Formats: sequence, C-alpha cells, structure tokens
Amino acid sequence: MTPKMTESELNAFLVRVFAQVADQFHVEKVGSNTATLRLRVDNSHIRPGGTISGPSMFSLADVAMYVATLAMIGPKALAVTTNCSIDFMRKPNADKDLIAHAVIHKLGRSLSVGNVLVYSEGSEKPVASANLTYAIPPQGSAADVDA
Amino acid sequence: MTPKMTESELNAFLVRVFAQVADQFHVEKVGSNTATLRLRVDNSHIRPGGTISGPSMFSLADVAMYVATLAMIGPKALAVTTNCSIDFMRKPNADKDLIAHAVIHKLGRSLSVGNVLVYSEGSEKPVASANLTYAIPPQGSAADVDA
Amino acid sequence: MTPKMTESELNAFLVRVFAQVADQFHVEKVGSNTATLRLRVDNSHIRPGGTISGPSMFSLADVAMYVATLAMIGPKALAVTTNCSIDFMRKPNADKDLIAHAVIHKLGRSLSVGNVLVYSEGSEKPVASANLTYAIPPQGSAADVDA
Amino acid sequence: MTPKMTESELNAFLVRVFAQVADQFHVEKVGSNTATLRLRVDNSHIRPGGTISGPSMFSLADVAMYVATLAMIGPKALAVTTNCSIDFMRKPNADKDLIAHAVIHKLGRSLSVGNVLVYSEGSEKPVASANLTYAIPPQGSAADVDA
Repeated sequence: MTPKMTESELNAFLVRVFAQVADQFHVEKVGSNTATLRLRVDNSHIRPGGTISGPSMFSLADVAMYVATLAMIGPKALAVTTNCSIDFMRKPNADKDLIAHAVIHKLGRSLSVGNVLVYSEGSEKPVASANLTYAIPPQGSAADVDA
Repeated sequence: MTPKMTESELNAFLVRVFAQVADQFHVEKVGSNTATLRLRVDNSHIRPGGTISGPSMFSLADVAMYVATLAMIGPKALAVTTNCSIDFMRKPNADKDLIAHAVIHKLGRSLSVGNVLVYSEGSEKPVASANLTYAIPPQGSAADVDA
Repeated sequence: MTPKMTESELNAFLVRVFAQVADQFHVEKVGSNTATLRLRVDNSHIRPGGTISGPSMFSLADVAMYVATLAMIGPKALAVTTNCSIDFMRKPNADKDLIAHAVIHKLGRSLSVGNVLVYSEGSEKPVASANLTYAIPPQGSAADVDA
Repeated sequence: MTPKMTESELNAFLVRVFAQVADQFHVEKVGSNTATLRLRVDNSHIRPGGTISGPSMFSLADVAMYVATLAMIGPKALAVTTNCSIDFMRKPNADKDLIAHAVIHKLGRSLSVGNVLVYSEGSEKPVASANLTYAIPPQGSAADVDA
C-alpha cells in the first residue's frame, strides 16, 4: 500500500500540530508501513555522562510511529499512543543525531501496532527498541484534520 | 527500610544532575520504596486537543522511579533506565499538574524494578501506568556521586 | 461498582471456556475492579533449578486480568489480550502455589487496562508484575456468552 | 559472529533442560543473532473461537529468544527472562503451526535483548510481536551446563 502523504506533507503537518517541538524532528523517508525520522540533537537532549536523555529517545520513537501511521491513513491529529514498551540498550552518542526506523506490523481500523528501532546516526547498533500502539480516531470524527 | 535521602536532598540532587529540566519536577514525598513527584505543567507540555504530551508523562514516570531508587540507595547520577512499559489510559487535564506515585517492587544490587501511576492532580483515576527497570551502577564505580 | 459475577460463577465460567486448563486456576476473591487468583502449581509448571516457568506466571497474570474484567462486565468468552508487559523479578518457590492480585486501572467500553502482581503463596515480595490490556467485544456481538 | 551451537545441538539441549515441553518446540534455523523456531500446535494450545492461546504464543517467543541467545553464548540452562512485552495483533490460525523469528538487538555480558515476531505458518502477517530481555548468568557460575 502506497503512503497517502509525502515526506514534505508530513513535515508540514508536524509543524502545524506540534508547534513547540516540530523543529526537533524531521521526516526523512516514508514507505509502505515504514517511516524514518531524525531527531536533531541539541543541548536540551543531553544528560550527565555525555548521553542523550531517555525521554528524547522515547519522543522520537513515539513520533516515528505516529508518522508511519499518518502516512498510511492520512492526517489525523488526534491519533494517540495507548502503549509503549521501550528497551534502552546502549548509550547514544551525544555528538550525533538520532535516527528512528518505524515499521507497522498491524494497521487496523482502530489500532496501529509496530516497532521502532533508534540509532545514533552512522551506527548499525540500535540504542533503543520500542513497541508502540496507537489508537486511531473513527472516520469522520472531529479528530480528522484537513491536511 | 528508611530512605537514605530526604525530599530536600533529592530535590537538590535533581537540580545538580538534571540542570535543564529539574525545575519542572518536584519531589513531594519519599518513603520506604516509594516516591511521590509533581510535574509542574506548563505550555511546553501541552498538545493539540487540550492534553499533555506522552513524553511529559513518560518523563515524570521515569524521574519518579529514579527518585524512589536513589532515595533508597543514595545518590548515583548514572543509574539508567533499561526498560519502560507505559499504558496511556486517560487524557490528562491540561490545567492541572501531574502527580506520580512510584513503588519499587524489587531493589536488587544491580536492578531496581517498580511501577509508577500518574494522575492529574486531584483525580483518583490514573492517566498512565508504567513499569520501569533501572540498572544500578556497581558500588564504588565512577558513577557514584558525592551528594 | 459491584462485580456482576461471583467467585463461583467465575470458576464455573472458566471450566466451561478453558476446559483444558481451568482446573489449574482458582478464583479466590473478586471485588470492585480487583481479583485474586491461585495457580495450583504441579509438576508441569516446574523448570530446572527448582523454579516455576515464565509461561506459568504469564498465564496466571493473563487469567487474573481476564477474571477481574469479566467480573465487572459479565461473561464474554472472547475478550482477548492485546498487550502484556511482564517483569520477572524473583525466583518463585516451586513448593508453593502462585497467587495473583489483579487491579483494573481503566475499564472502558472497548479496553480494560490493569496491573497484576504475582506472589509465591505466603510471601510479600512479588515474583512478577504485569501490565495487561484486554480488548472487550462490542455489546450484543456474537462474543457474548450466556452465563 | 557465528553461532556456537547448531540446530541439532540446540534441539538436544531443549530436550534435556525442558523435558516436559521440548517436544512442542523445534529449532528450525539459527544464524548470527537470529533463530527461527516452530511450535507444533496441538489441542492443548487451542482456545474458544478456533484460536491459539496467548500463553502458547508467549512461550514460543520466550523459547525463541532463549535459543537465539544460547546459540551465541553456548549452553547455559539458567539464563532467565527478566522482561517481556508482547503485542497480540491477529488471531492465529488454529490449523497451522506457529513460527517465530527472533533477532538479538544487544548481546552484552549480562543481558540479551531482542525482538521476536510470531506467525501462523505460511502467513506474512505477524500474530504477535514481543520484546524480551534475558539475564545471562556470570561465566563459570553453577549455571553453566556441559553441552
């Protein structure tokens, strides 16, 4: 299934609905049930010991799964995360951006379920792995947003 | 077992190790294997639809488990989250602070495992429930920090 | 809210819908959004090192959340687990039954979300902690079962 | 890194340490940080509605991650699961075996962390996705077992 939204449409959508944080994230690429996102790491993400905070990795995984889902179903601002299980496996490199690869394993009418692997840019060893579930608002509800 | 650190020692410790974000969090109370924390909700936490962002709830749960653990073992800046599973159950009230109650179920030499329930202040129905595991650095390692 | 089913109704229901395994489980007590269950530990649950298998603990947590939910909504055989995150924290005592305490944190129309703590009988230290989500079939669907 | 154990060594090892259940599982293939296992579905795994029980899928995911880990580190009977988060996404086909593909994302000295996707044989759509963490006993401990 071909995505319904392009990378630039998704980036523009993030700016519109996540005004406060959208400049941190960049949609690099979307495909059939997949999305690749970048977190532009800055000083606000760094923690003691030269690492990147857990919430920064969580946020990126969360947005990556959101974008992968929106790309397939079209713009719905109010899709909400219902569950996330995340393993933090390695210390990220504080000097590199974070890259997330999201894969949707099931896209149903009311739920989207998938996995996101997060990497320090340039490394092949993931720093975090997250399983996420998004609840999708019903068709035609107020949660639909014109793109 | 009595906590090794008081609420004010823990608040001072957060300011020292999490300079960028410590003013958002306040340790309200610690007890034997428990901690209660507040997230001072401000505009940076709000999301479309008058709700509070998932990463804000995750951060609070994460810090609450960290504080519950530190209170029992003493100040170790480099204790790190290895796993978090979080259920987002209700829409938080954007006009209220978030309150987290953390309970440690197992405090071993190398791992601390527990559950955190997050509430909008004044409500008895949790908005999120998280299970977290922290890895504790070995005694005498560089990860120990003078309080 | 008072449970809609008693302990004996729930035990009878388990026998009817889980014929193969129901004799392993016993509903000890149900209350408002809570349930306590017993797993009668036998040789099939034991593993090398004198412990009880992970799947046995998972099964008990899963059935305990199912029973807590059924008690509140009435008999629906086809409620299904959609997510479970479980921490295995201590080695269970192979000579004791396992006891599970389930608490529902949110009972919505389509989802039931809660936490289950599992203990070796007589111990106050949990061996496992699980967060579970059940999907509830719509009212009046074929999934309703006469009690 | 090449596995230290072959498929037949792993199948023989399962029979030795999991006498009660080993005939249900079959190691189909191991590779570098990967393992493919089969659950031979029989009547004991079936549940109302013509489906396979959640504990059966959990068990398979758990054993698949165990086998992927053992293949890389050699036979250690007492490696134990510390955490599993599993999403149940589709109803398995009760007439087909279940196939699990495990991938290790991090193999450290004390922890092995990975993801397992479970399929009904012949289908490309996963029925379950699990993230698992195994604790590995220290070198030379009593937990080492001669192969």
